[in-house]
Amino acid sequence: MSSLQSLDRLSLNQITINRWSVREAAEGCARAGVPSIALWRDKVSAAGLAESRRIVDAHGLQVSSLCRGGMFPAATAAERQLRIDDNRRAVEEAAALGTDVLVLVCGPAPDRDIAGARSMVEEGIAKVADYAKSCGVKLGIEPLHPMYAAERSVVNTLKQANQIARQFPADQVGVIVDVFHVWWDPELYEEIRGAAGRILGFHVSDWIVPTPDMLLGRGMMGDGVIDIRSIRHAVEATGYQGPIEVEIFNQAIWNQPGDDVLATMQARYLEHV
Amino acid sequence: MSSLQSLDRLSLNQITINRWSVREAAEGCARAGVPSIALWRDKVSAAGLAESRRIVDAHGLQVSSLCRGGMFPAATAAERQLRIDDNRRAVEEAAALGTDVLVLVCGPAPDRDIAGARSMVEEGIAKVADYAKSCGVKLGIEPLHPMYAAERSVVNTLKQANQIARQFPADQVGVIVDVFHVWWDPELYEEIRGAAGRILGFHVSDWIVPTPDMLLGRGMMGDGVIDIRSIRHAVEATGYQGPIEVEIFNQAIWNQPGDDVLATMQARYLEHV
Repeated sequence: MSSLQSLDRLSLNQITINRWSVREAAEGCARAGVPSIALWRDKVSAAGLAESRRIVDAHGLQVSSLCRGGMFPAATAAERQLRIDDNRRAVEEAAALGTDVLVLVCGPAPDRDIAGARSMVEEGIAKVADYAKSCGVKLGIEPLHPMYAAERSVVNTLKQANQIARQFPADQVGVIVDVFHVWWDPELYEEIRGAAGRILGFHVSDWIVPTPDMLLGRGMMGDGVIDIRSIRHAVEATGYQGPIEVEIFNQAIWNQPGDDVLATMQARYLEHV
Repeated sequence: MSSLQSLDRLSLNQITINRWSVREAAEGCARAGVPSIALWRDKVSAAGLAESRRIVDAHGLQVSSLCRGGMFPAATAAERQLRIDDNRRAVEEAAALGTDVLVLVCGPAPDRDIAGARSMVEEGIAKVADYAKSCGVKLGIEPLHPMYAAERSVVNTLKQANQIARQFPADQVGVIVDVFHVWWDPELYEEIRGAAGRILGFHVSDWIVPTPDMLLGRGMMGDGVIDIRSIRHAVEATGYQGPIEVEIFNQAIWNQPGDDVLATMQARYLEHV
């Protein structure tokens, strides 16, 4: 299996260097020669939406995705409507930032009824998809690792994400493949093939052993047990040639100088992705 | 859905009160009226195998299972053979303790090849199953939560466990359903139905939010988000009427007096299981 020969498809997911503002991240990417960036809504909000767009444009960056919409399940219809309204705003923000991908972290159940919450996710996506299309934005369902089922998302396998996505036209709803969330899945390669034509993003990091923390314990590529390259080849075999985001939640990495993280990330990308 | 009306099927998995020796656990169960106990090999070893059997018999306890065999994948054939030898000893210990169920925690991969490790699990079970049958012991494959895929087991869904078990006669290899490991699975109920005739154990605890620790963060039944009763009913609908083990890895519970834990466990069992 061949390594990547350039950094053309590399994108910094902003969470990887969490201390940086939109401006600092854009400047860092420009300095390092990272061509794309994935933005987070809280940081875009802090910088201002229009100003964020000006910043990324001024530094010649592509925006690979906006993180994140989703969080659909809620105990009451009124609260669920608020979530849908928020997703519409997220769609508008994605469009304003010049990206056509809004990443969905679908949300946990408000109670013990996980099947019910999964239905709420489908209903929520159905209520946002047409509007997203009218804005030129696709919804990328990101299955989250089952250890986040109680707190972040009831969509926990790529199979599930594919099943939901297929209820919608392929130009409206797709999936995000993040190796950290799916590497363990016995049906991973089969479901990657099944996602052909709907893969809207590919995220890399690593699973380190021992895992220091459930949320902030992801590793830099090469530091863990995930066969990242095999997964990339499977994703590319479906035809996906889009951005590859490095998305790492890790306190130790957050504590490092951002430019150092970028340099490590670039080297590891070529070596391990 | 109806609650349990008696404690007849309740079993204390010894890890729930980790500070207790075999003797202390047996005395505690006898005091509290818990009819069964699941033993751990390290504690049996500390007490002595024959003495452990005498202790549980003297207190009128059934041994619901022995924890644990497994850990099959290893980098070399020699090391894999050592693991198989150890599993044969575990089988002998189970028989000596008077239980017909050896729980298998199948083990992590020695490298980045998780599919290869899964094959090693199947090979390992194949090399132990006949011997286990000759000893009157069944092998119970316990799928572990995907967050343990890198460190404890590459068998991470009930579907996987069922697929492995079906390669063997039903009187040799079955599965263990532990709500903590499988509650998140979108295919859980389908796979419980698929396990009919092969369910060798049912384990309960809860998934608490926020989760304090990946290993020691399980909760007492009722303190978390798992719909334990629905899962029990599904397990019973397959015909399973065997022991229900309370298996909780939780530092805060380990810090409590054992008799208090037993009392809480009994009340929560009737209320939430």
